[in-house]
Amino acid sequence: MNPTKQNTRKWWGWGYVGKSYSIENRPNVWPFLKQKLALTPRKCRIIALDDIELPPPKLTAELLKELTEIYGENNINTSKVTRISHSFGQSYGDVICLRKGNIDHAIDVVVYPRNEEQIQKTIIMASKNRLAIIPYGGGTSVTGNLELRNDESYDGGISMDMRKMNMIQIDNVSQTVTAQAGIFGPALEEAVNAQGLTLGHFPQSFEFSTLGGWLATRSAGQNSTRYGKIEDMLISLRAITPTGIIETKSIPASSTGPSIDQLFVGSEGTLGIISQATLQLQPLSASTEMCGILFKRFLDGVQAVRAMSQAGIVPSVLRISDEPETEATFMFRSQSANPIKRVAEKGGMWFLNQRDYSFQKGSLMILVFEGSPQQVALDKSAALRICKRHRAVSLGNIVGKAWHKERFLLPYLRDVLLDNGVMIDTLETAITWDKINNLYFNVRNAISKAIEKQGMKPLVLTHMSHVYRTGASLYFIFMANQKIDAELEQWQEIKAATIEAILHNGGTLSHHHGVGRDHARWFEDEVGHLGKAFVLASKSYFDPQHILNPENFG
Amino acid sequence: MNPTKQNTRKWWGWGYVGKSYSIENRPNVWPFLKQKLALTPRKCRIIALDDIELPPPKLTAELLKELTEIYGENNINTSKVTRISHSFGQSYGDVICLRKGNIDHAIDVVVYPRNEEQIQKTIIMASKNRLAIIPYGGGTSVTGNLELRNDESYDGGISMDMRKMNMIQIDNVSQTVTAQAGIFGPALEEAVNAQGLTLGHFPQSFEFSTLGGWLATRSAGQNSTRYGKIEDMLISLRAITPTGIIETKSIPASSTGPSIDQLFVGSEGTLGIISQATLQLQPLSASTEMCGILFKRFLDGVQAVRAMSQAGIVPSVLRISDEPETEATFMFRSQSANPIKRVAEKGGMWFLNQRDYSFQKGSLMILVFEGSPQQVALDKSAALRICKRHRAVSLGNIVGKAWHKERFLLPYLRDVLLDNGVMIDTLETAITWDKINNLYFNVRNAISKAIEKQGMKPLVLTHMSHVYRTGASLYFIFMANQKIDAELEQWQEIKAATIEAILHNGGTLSHHHGVGRDHARWFEDEVGHLGKAFVLASKSYFDPQHILNPENFG
Ligand SMILES: Cc1cc2nc3c(=O)[nH]c(=O)nc-3n(C[C@H](O)[C@H](O)[C@H](O)COP(=O)(O)OP(=O)(O)OC[C@H]3O[C@@H](n4cnc5c(N)ncnc54)[C@H](O)[C@@H]3O)c2cc1C
Ligand SMILES: Cc1cc2nc3c(=O)[nH]c(=O)nc-3n(C[C@H](O)[C@H](O)[C@H](O)COP(=O)(O)OP(=O)(O)OC[C@H]3O[C@@H](n4cnc5c(N)ncnc54)[C@H](O)[C@@H]3O)c2cc1C
Repeated sequence: MNPTKQNTRKWWGWGYVGKSYSIENRPNVWPFLKQKLALTPRKCRIIALDDIELPPPKLTAELLKELTEIYGENNINTSKVTRISHSFGQSYGDVICLRKGNIDHAIDVVVYPRNEEQIQKTIIMASKNRLAIIPYGGGTSVTGNLELRNDESYDGGISMDMRKMNMIQIDNVSQTVTAQAGIFGPALEEAVNAQGLTLGHFPQSFEFSTLGGWLATRSAGQNSTRYGKIEDMLISLRAITPTGIIETKSIPASSTGPSIDQLFVGSEGTLGIISQATLQLQPLSASTEMCGILFKRFLDGVQAVRAMSQAGIVPSVLRISDEPETEATFMFRSQSANPIKRVAEKGGMWFLNQRDYSFQKGSLMILVFEGSPQQVALDKSAALRICKRHRAVSLGNIVGKAWHKERFLLPYLRDVLLDNGVMIDTLETAITWDKINNLYFNVRNAISKAIEKQGMKPLVLTHMSHVYRTGASLYFIFMANQKIDAELEQWQEIKAATIEAILHNGGTLSHHHGVGRDHARWFEDEVGHLGKAFVLASKSYFDPQHILNPENFG
Repeated sequence: MNPTKQNTRKWWGWGYVGKSYSIENRPNVWPFLKQKLALTPRKCRIIALDDIELPPPKLTAELLKELTEIYGENNINTSKVTRISHSFGQSYGDVICLRKGNIDHAIDVVVYPRNEEQIQKTIIMASKNRLAIIPYGGGTSVTGNLELRNDESYDGGISMDMRKMNMIQIDNVSQTVTAQAGIFGPALEEAVNAQGLTLGHFPQSFEFSTLGGWLATRSAGQNSTRYGKIEDMLISLRAITPTGIIETKSIPASSTGPSIDQLFVGSEGTLGIISQATLQLQPLSASTEMCGILFKRFLDGVQAVRAMSQAGIVPSVLRISDEPETEATFMFRSQSANPIKRVAEKGGMWFLNQRDYSFQKGSLMILVFEGSPQQVALDKSAALRICKRHRAVSLGNIVGKAWHKERFLLPYLRDVLLDNGVMIDTLETAITWDKINNLYFNVRNAISKAIEKQGMKPLVLTHMSHVYRTGASLYFIFMANQKIDAELEQWQEIKAATIEAILHNGGTLSHHHGVGRDHARWFEDEVGHLGKAFVLASKSYFDPQHILNPENFG
């Protein structure tokens, strides 16, 4: 399968057509959800493509012809399905709109540049004709980053899909890769793997997200504890702005004024089109070990994680689920077809319960170590020692392996839940250690209350990941019965309550999802009045006519 | 001794009055330099303070009174020695001007804010009255960062010395420190050491430089390979700009747009006065080991360093001298007073020579490892294995210890050389591994040629330090006979030739010294036309009347 082929991807949800998160061999899922959510199952249909009515394109035939001349017939698309799929990202709200066919705004045309000249020409054309350009990577944004909502201001909207700019060059000596922005995660990682190297960037959206999208949103991969966020791997970039070309220098570090790299990272398509970037690679690890660890309480685990990170132990993956998420993970596990494994599982469970550990009230940690065999052995033993000091028990490597195997499958779960009338969404933040417990309790509480206020039973799952010396990220998943025909409002209410609790408790508005349009109203709370004013002034500097993704950051 | 007491510091050179780099017990220094430089020794006097004629202050008595009202008598200073010492930094050019009394520009008054309100009032006053404000940390800048040269544009120059803003607060849970910008290196490090923590930031100017200066110049300490540059340790900052206050959030990482922290880092006093910052700390290491290693050739050592860094071995100090620097280090070593040590040294030398190693034609590496005893042992053995593979021999821990002991003493050497008519200066860059050998050869060559063109014999010493996965920093030291009465021109010529060679060979204009006024003419080469224009536009945004350090970046 190939993520760059549009027709193999669902326009109404996550991933490939025909691929799904299978519930069949997970017998506990529905009983668990029924109990937790007081679920009243119902079947929710997806609107047929033919039944969707799209707003008519605003772009004149003349301008479309001009665009076609720039791109050639094969690199421009105005088909219905392409317009639909490029007018939204992959947030819960987006998917609700898509599934119901509630589409009140759409881009007019998708162009696929193959070179910077085409980008420049498009920018000039858009500047002259009041057109908006929305840079489009893999379309996996969850913060309303790809929409053109306020489209009265524009006489047309162009989605600039970068997937055909996907060339790649590897420097084996410096261990860097220079790639065009439209390259997808798997293609980039495979190319560098072939040289014995890795980028180490694995967001859960890995299969369908691109280098340009990662940079534009300050993405974090699941192995970020070891490899860093995408902005930490960045060596240099090139961006085409309406004012001119920005090209930074490929050097490991410098002392030459404000960082222009760190201005364009996170700019969410508002300052320029990132055309290429150079990133740091690392050698593929000689050795990898996965560990599952069970704590009695989540807060014990949080303490253990802090002790590990401050002792300089750097796993590549460090994830710990709170009690509700641990229970859900257990309930969602697939039943092994192998009867011997099943017996072994039961035996293990009995053993744990005897010692007062359980998946129903404990807290599960996944650790992955990478490096030389000696380093892995040293880190693992030091980490386990700390965990034991915090009353944990080691589960061996099976749980870790199961997590690893399914980590890119999980996003498919949402479609299954939506088919059955269950709302599910996630919000994430990062916070320093001194405030993490408070934030955890208060945000969980805020989510539950917001859902209860709507008359629903909430299920709130939390894990910690992306660990730093000074703090970590917390990731909240919430589920409830959908409010029929008020799905969007329901979601927006909960989201707002959650974000306000996050900000009130000192967390960041986003650790790796970005700001977009959906979080724009809180942007000033995050960066301050002058901070926001400066970001908007920078936009006006590089994009004086506000043609590039004009609504992000508010 | 206390670096915050102005009167104990030399106004004409480095460090404390009365402290010096003693040549007495280093019998080889003068013979070595005489031979290498064809030195014609001469005694160079320092002008007496009384003989210096300072440009008269431009600030009106009325404005001075207004300032005095803001600061109080004890926090404002217009004495001659204070004006002189605050009108220059510590570059070779600065020190030449000071020693000779060639002072054609000076600030009018030094103020010592104790709070942000005073800073704000000063900014308002300066805006109204065409005054320039130069933020002043420790005054150790080597890039002409503190001068007000083009002073016709201003009706007065204020040096804002931050030393009295030096409060500090430690968060033991998150392991961060929040400190005011004027705190000096030793005070900050001692305070966090008392809590079992370290910032790990030790620039060679450590004793006399401040947190605000480090941030404003993107400083790198000698242990940056492990602890990072100052910008990597930064969690948040607060800055007073003419447009308003910038305060970023204390979070370990986020995804909320362009980085405002990384805009103010490196801003060299042009965007705002950094009043405080929060930085990441680390626990003091349980174990430290220092190793000296001798390579046959510098380029073998460079290869070994690359292999180490790409294998993920992270010493806190990793420094390797090329052959000329290794020889000079050997010649500059102090003679042990202990006869047994001397015999041992001779024995060691004989042993090395037998095996075809020597300090006269080899390449010396210093490695310092920190961490848990197990981690140190693992890193050390892995590093030594790589070094041996590159034909190196281990020298045990004596050389490393000697380096460590003298590392903050070396800056005093310049004054001794200047007393004797020897020019000495340093330039540094960073570069990716693929280009490092070329840059090394070509820049060395360019320096030598520039000096030879002046009819002098050059001595060029190079070391590599501040190591990254993708490359490293190279640091060049050059010496020659001074060109009598044309010292400044001589220096400027060599500096220009060196910088052009660095840029031509792909290196950065500066890895840790900054841009200032001295490098401003190359700033556009470094960041591009649009990059420079954006930095200047940001200045105009935060400082529309250009009152803050108006000449930096050009
Ligand atoms: C199921 C799921 C799981 C996810 N997991 C993670 C995760 O683990 N970690 C994480 O960080 N994120 C995650 N995300 C969010 C999302 O995948 C990231 O934001 C990702 O970086 C977006 O990349 P993309 O290529 O899909 O960009 P898009 O969604 O297409 O675009 C995102 C933004 O970047 C801009 N942009 C894209 N390309 C360019 C370019 N070349 N130049 C300028 N601007 C550009 C767009 O205009 C838009 O503003 C997840 C999303 C989903 C749906
Ligand atoms: C002998 C010697 C050795 C050195 N070794 C190193 C080294 O190893 N590593 C290294 O990185 N550098 C080194 N340097 C350079 C210098 O020490 C650094 O640039 C240092 O960071 C400057 O700090 P300072 O407090 O002295 O700042 P200053 O020299 O006083 O100021 C430097 C710049 O920062 C601005 N500034 C200072 N404080 C503030 C503030 N609070 N807000 C806004 N702007 C401010 C000033 O306006 C100026 O532009 C060395 C210099 C010398 C002379």
